[in-house]
Parts: sequence; structure tokens; C-alpha cells
Amino acid sequence: MPTGVVPDLDALMQSLPDDSLVVEPDRMANYRWDRAHDPDAGMPLAVVRATCTEDVQAAVRFASAHGIPVVTRGAGTGLSGGSSAVDGCIVVSTERMRAIEVDPNTRTATVGPGLMNGEVKAAVAEHGLWYPPDPSSFEICSIGGNVATNAGGLCCAKYGVTTDYVLGMTVVLADGTAVELGGPRLKDVAGLSLTKLFVGSEGTLGIITRVVLRLLPAPRIPATLVATFGTLEAACTAVLAITRRMRPSMLEFMDKASINAVEDMTRMGLDRDAEALLVMQSDEPTGFAAVEIAAMAKFCEASGATEVFSTDDPDEGEAFVTARRIAIPAIERRGSLLLEDVGVPVPRLGDLVMGIATISRAHDVEIAVIAHAADGNTHPLIVFDPMDAEQKSRAQAAYGEVMELAVGLGGTITGEHGVGRLKKPWLGLYLGDDVMALNRRIKNALDPDGILNPGCVL
Amino acid sequence: MPTGVVPDLDALMQSLPDDSLVVEPDRMANYRWDRAHDPDAGMPLAVVRATCTEDVQAAVRFASAHGIPVVTRGAGTGLSGGSSAVDGCIVVSTERMRAIEVDPNTRTATVGPGLMNGEVKAAVAEHGLWYPPDPSSFEICSIGGNVATNAGGLCCAKYGVTTDYVLGMTVVLADGTAVELGGPRLKDVAGLSLTKLFVGSEGTLGIITRVVLRLLPAPRIPATLVATFGTLEAACTAVLAITRRMRPSMLEFMDKASINAVEDMTRMGLDRDAEALLVMQSDEPTGFAAVEIAAMAKFCEASGATEVFSTDDPDEGEAFVTARRIAIPAIERRGSLLLEDVGVPVPRLGDLVMGIATISRAHDVEIAVIAHAADGNTHPLIVFDPMDAEQKSRAQAAYGEVMELAVGLGGTITGEHGVGRLKKPWLGLYLGDDVMALNRRIKNALDPDGILNPGCVL
Repeated sequence: MPTGVVPDLDALMQSLPDDSLVVEPDRMANYRWDRAHDPDAGMPLAVVRATCTEDVQAAVRFASAHGIPVVTRGAGTGLSGGSSAVDGCIVVSTERMRAIEVDPNTRTATVGPGLMNGEVKAAVAEHGLWYPPDPSSFEICSIGGNVATNAGGLCCAKYGVTTDYVLGMTVVLADGTAVELGGPRLKDVAGLSLTKLFVGSEGTLGIITRVVLRLLPAPRIPATLVATFGTLEAACTAVLAITRRMRPSMLEFMDKASINAVEDMTRMGLDRDAEALLVMQSDEPTGFAAVEIAAMAKFCEASGATEVFSTDDPDEGEAFVTARRIAIPAIERRGSLLLEDVGVPVPRLGDLVMGIATISRAHDVEIAVIAHAADGNTHPLIVFDPMDAEQKSRAQAAYGEVMELAVGLGGTITGEHGVGRLKKPWLGLYLGDDVMALNRRIKNALDPDGILNPGCVL
Repeated sequence: MPTGVVPDLDALMQSLPDDSLVVEPDRMANYRWDRAHDPDAGMPLAVVRATCTEDVQAAVRFASAHGIPVVTRGAGTGLSGGSSAVDGCIVVSTERMRAIEVDPNTRTATVGPGLMNGEVKAAVAEHGLWYPPDPSSFEICSIGGNVATNAGGLCCAKYGVTTDYVLGMTVVLADGTAVELGGPRLKDVAGLSLTKLFVGSEGTLGIITRVVLRLLPAPRIPATLVATFGTLEAACTAVLAITRRMRPSMLEFMDKASINAVEDMTRMGLDRDAEALLVMQSDEPTGFAAVEIAAMAKFCEASGATEVFSTDDPDEGEAFVTARRIAIPAIERRGSLLLEDVGVPVPRLGDLVMGIATISRAHDVEIAVIAHAADGNTHPLIVFDPMDAEQKSRAQAAYGEVMELAVGLGGTITGEHGVGRLKKPWLGLYLGDDVMALNRRIKNALDPDGILNPGCVL
């Protein structure tokens, strides 16, 4: 609060259900950080554990009346610090907004933001339906956070990102007004594309309290191909050969450091000497999947793969996908992480991963690289010892250089995690002054007092 | 011009290439109307036939300096009056901005807004690639207009709408600044989702001078199924049975009036007695397409289809698709048209088409209905004699009632054509006051002087 005057929370408490307002510092501590572990996270004035849109409205109206910042959080698994609390803010937690209604007739689900991505998948699967977006953290990340960051995942190579599945939403605006945007209509061009604007807005334009998700029929069981390579270049050549010609349902990349970290954890027999590993899937119908897998195998071999292995067995295939998914926790065993999310046009993927290797050597810090290769979206994981200030500083220098490298290659500073607070210093480098100004005009139009997630993104 | 003072166009002419500025009234007449044939279209002050982004900037800077409205047009095939000129405006025509650069490595095309949709398709097909969105008018509508209206088409049942294929763009803002948004990156969440905001903004937020389109590998040749029905209800039941379970690559609907109008034109042997006809396609791999076609045939039969016919022959299949595509010109032979574009959640499709039949009877006007059935997006075509003022007035009453019916069924007033000027009176009914206000805040933030396409949408 700019004035330093603590407003009376009684009025807010009275407009909320019992046990919705948390003011005890020890309980509030659970709501200060997301997984970016921002050391500068502030201490909230209060946490509102909202149960419905009206609770969120009450919180925002109170905040608006008193000029108090509002930070929204779902499951707190964000990786860019978009949910870090700021001093004196109200944290709106959507963790209790977990309703889901699946409508097989419209092939949509209407979902509370607090439900986990994996819970959405499970609920719709009971109706023979599928919600594709699949961040690696799908079991622990909330759908509201997914929408707020326009989250990606492994399926995006073929099935796109979160925004492609959001048909509508309820949003609480900065003045507490709740608006309904879109709905279970597959085509709708009446008025500006506001639903799409709120997707990826990281809590800076409004608070999403309900989303209408488009669903697909249940996916087919995929066939899996795994290939190892003696050089990063060969693996990236294979990626490009594949993405030029086909749409695998998955095309994931792991470098040597990631392979070894996962092998340390799983002992599943990955080739520790390989410089890179690709995990590919085809979910085409039986027979045709075999054709796609064979084509991908051929491109891998022609690009110099040292070993190529395919399987139709779903469990065996899933084991490799899991290996890729657990890479982050596996590498986290080696130290603290600065988790990158840079993306480039696919033809520049080789330049990016080789440039990252150069940065790693130059700063003498370990950087493990995993990637949603078909999207050109990489996650360089910079490992450091948090007790070693000098190493930490080298890691931070490398973190910035990786973003600068990506931008220099025509890429983005964040493909799917969001800008949050961690990447804010580099956003201007990427967008340039005019697009930054355009972002600010939208922000100012929707949140003139700047109370929504201040310090995030812009 | 508010002041009535005509500004000196010499300065503008000097900042443009030769033959870019049109001021002769007879030449300007070609730039006053789109296919909505708005009788209230105004007379422009000048037409700028831009050749590049800089020409558009020159036009907008001049307009901004003098407070002159700017109306952008591509091919002028808009159906909602979004490109109708207003008195004293500058029309910016993108017809000469026809460059295309296809990059098979990133599977993207960078395209000038004046290129036709069909030309984009043809250019990328030379590289074995595919741009899916396919308005029925694809041979004569520009890609810039498609992006400005977030156009749909027949492929959307499976492949989505224009916004799903727009990765980036250059936009000239209301003050003449040109900004680059997005680019050939498949995932990018750095900053607000501005690219998506400009898609569908109908020239009210900026002028799109270049788009980066995502492409897919070339499509497979589809198998086709045609089914006729004795009642509208049976056809809509079949649609829902299909969309609940599968994603055909096409699922189009024609009612009796459309069937007969097309049969009058083509003599292809359509069943003139059928109350409805569905044209369905599957583009799954050979073998599996047959499975999908068989499943759809089964759902049609179970819903009471009177005849079901399938073919693997691409020419035979394309003949039925063409029959559907030419329905609008076929019905246009019967009189002037008010072309509707209402959409509902798919389960309400039956209520919508049966309600339209009721409106048709109540106002004693012919309304032919075609629909992108899998999207719930219908095009009721209201036929009237423009010389018969009384009939025209009944047609206009029906036009409004169709929109009110759709909104009452949880639907939208426009699925893919845009609000333009024709549908503006109904936008508030659909969006409500709060969402209208939200639209206006965005509009005011980006175009504070209101020079961009005034009177359109908002």
C-alpha cells in the first residue's frame, strides 16, 4: 500500500464465506512463492481463498477501493514468478474453485480455475473426451494457471497450446466487474477477440474465475520412437527433417546432461554417452502410425542417429515420455535451477542448443537442455549451488545470455512459462519499444490503477 | 471530416508511389462497397492503393493529422459491411500488397494482405504444404480480410479458424506506427496476446499489412459421404451424433431451399424432395477414412436418413462440396439476399434451423439455410425483391429475429463474417453492457481519436 495505512479487513471478511480470509503470517507463507522461488517475494496483507466468482469480486472491489495490489495464484507451480506475492497485496487463491461440468454434446468442459490440468483430463476422459494441453507438470498445475500463462506442453507439436482450447471464460476485471466472454460456440467473431487477449495475460488484466474448454475425442494410443545421436547437430537436423514434412504427436529432445540426470534417477538404461535423445510419437491410426514411425526413423538415421528404437507397447512408450517429463526434477537433484524457456523458429534449434553449450562453457555452469523440439521451444536448466554466491552470479549471467541468444536467433524469451517477474528485464529487448508501449496501453485501459499483479510482465 | 474542411492531398500524394492515390469519383466508386452492398456507404475523400507497409503508414499519418476516418479493404468480399466507405474517409486498399514467401523449414508463409486465400493455398501447395482455412469465397477473398474477420470456412470442423493459423503480423496503428507482433515461432507467450487481439478486429484497431501464417503438411484426399433427410430434425440429430464422437474433416448442411437452388443451377441430380442434406468428409488415412465414413453413415441412418451415399472418388466428392460452396450464388439468383451468419452450440442447431423456418413462415419470406453444421454455424439466406419495399421490410424484420433467436439459444450473432456495420445494432444484445464497455476500452486505448473504421463493430 502506497500510503502505509493498513485498511480494515473486517469489511472484506464479512463479504466472504467463513475460512476464506487468511491473515496469519505462517499460513500466508504458503501463498508467497511459486516455483520460481523469487527471493524478493513480498508479504501479503491477506490471502483470499475464493470459492466462487463473487468471492473474487469481493476481494478485487476491496483492493480497488483501497489501492491494494492483487496477485492471483492457482496451484503455485509457475516458473517465472508470475504468482510471487508483493508486499501488502491481497493474494487471490483459486485453489478451492474446482468445479467441472463436462458436456459431451458440445464437446466442452466448464471448469473452475483451481482444478488441476490432470484432473480436467481425467474428468473428460470419463466421457471419452480429451483435453490435449499437457505441461510436464500437468498433475500439479492448475487449469487457471495454464490459461493465465497460455501453457504449452508435449502435445503442442500436433495439438497446439492452451489458447487453442479456450472458448470462453468469466473474468473479474480490475474494478470488480465480472464479465462472461465467449462460450461453448466453436466459431464466434462478435466483437473483439477478448477471450484470446486474457489467455496468457498472467493476472495483469483480470482474474479468470471460470473457463470453457474445447475438447477432442479421446486420443488413440500412440506408437513411440526413440533415437539417440552422437552430436547435438545431428539430432537437430533430424528434428527439422521431420517437422518439415509431418506432424508427429510428440517430438521431444534431451541433451546428454538431461539423459544422465534421468538415468541417475531411473536406471532405465538410457545411453549415457549419447549427446542427444529424441522421443517421438505418432497417434495416427494403426498401420498409418507405423508408416509415420518408419518415416521418422528414416529421417533420424539419415541425420546420423546412433540408435533407433520403436515400440507399439503403450507402457514402454510411456516410460520414455515419463523420462522426458521427469527431467526437471531429475536435474533439480544436482542443484538449484534457473529454468529457461526460450523458443526459436525450428530451423534455428541447432544454433540455439549449440550456443547454449558455448554459454555453459564460457560461464563454467552446467546447463542441461530439454526441448519441445517440434515447437523450437527449449528449457535450458541452469544448475547452481545456491550457497555459492559466485557460481550463482555466473548462473544468472548465463540465464540472461541464453535469452539474448534466443532473441538474436529470431526467437522468444518465453515459449510457454510466461514472463512473470523473472523475465521482465528482458521483455523490452525482445518486443522493442513500440510493442512494449502497445502492451502498456492495453494494460492501462483495463487496469488504470495498476492493482492487478503489479510488477509482473510489464 | 468533422470540420468540413477538405485537407490538401498533395502532401499525401507526395509520400506515396505513383498511381497509388485515387481521387476520381468514378474510380473511387469501386472502393465504396463490399458485398454487403450497404446503401449508406459514403463517398471517400481518397483511396490509397498501398504497395507496402510504409504506404499504409503514410496514409494513416495523414489521416491522423487531419482527423480523417480510415477504412481498410482487401478484396471487398466482406458480407457484413466492414469495408463500407464512410463519407470523407481515406480508403486504404491492400489489393496491391500481394507478396508471399513460403518457408518450408518453419512451415510458415509470410503474406501480404491483398493475396487471395486461394492464392495462398496454391503457393504453399507447391511446397507440399497446406493453409487450411477455407471460406466458401476462398478464390475471391483476401487473406487480409480473412485475418481481419477471423474467417472460418468448411474445414473448421476439424482444422479450426483463421486465428489458429496466425502466428504473427505487421500492424499499422492509429498514429501510423508500424509494429511487428509474433513471428514464425510456434510458441510465444512474451507479453500480451496482441496478435490474437488484432485477428478479428475488422480494421478497428489497426491495419494489418503482413501476416505470418502457420502451415500444415499437405492434406490427404478425403472420402465423402452424402446423406439426405426427410426432416430438419433428423439431419440435426445426425450432426450431433457425429460431432459428439468424432471429428470429420467436413460436415456441411443444406436445407430444401438450398438444395433446390443448387439443383436449379447445376442439374447434378440432388434430391429435390429432401428437407436436408449433409455433406461429410473424412481425411483420415486410407482404410481409417472408410471406418469414419461408415460410422457417419451409421449415425445418419440411425437418425433417419432417407439416402446415404459415399464415394472415395475425389472428383465425385468435390462435386458435392462445390454444390455446397455455390449455394450462396445459387440462391442469389432468386433475389437479393440478407446473408446471416448466426452460430449456436451444436446441440441447439435443430432449434435454430426449425426456429428459422418459423420466422420464414411468420414473415412470409424465403429463408434458405446452409450451415457449417459441425460448428453450429449457419448461414440463413433471406431472399427478397429489392424493388418490393414491403417485402424488403419483412426480410429485414426476419434478419433481426434470426439473430435474436440465435442469442436466445445461447448462440452468437456472427460466427465468421464479422459484425461490420450491418450487425452492429445487435452486438449489444449479444455481448451485454459490460462486455461492450470492455470492447470500447480496448478500442479507445488503441484508437483514441476513433479514426480507424468508425461505425464498424462498435
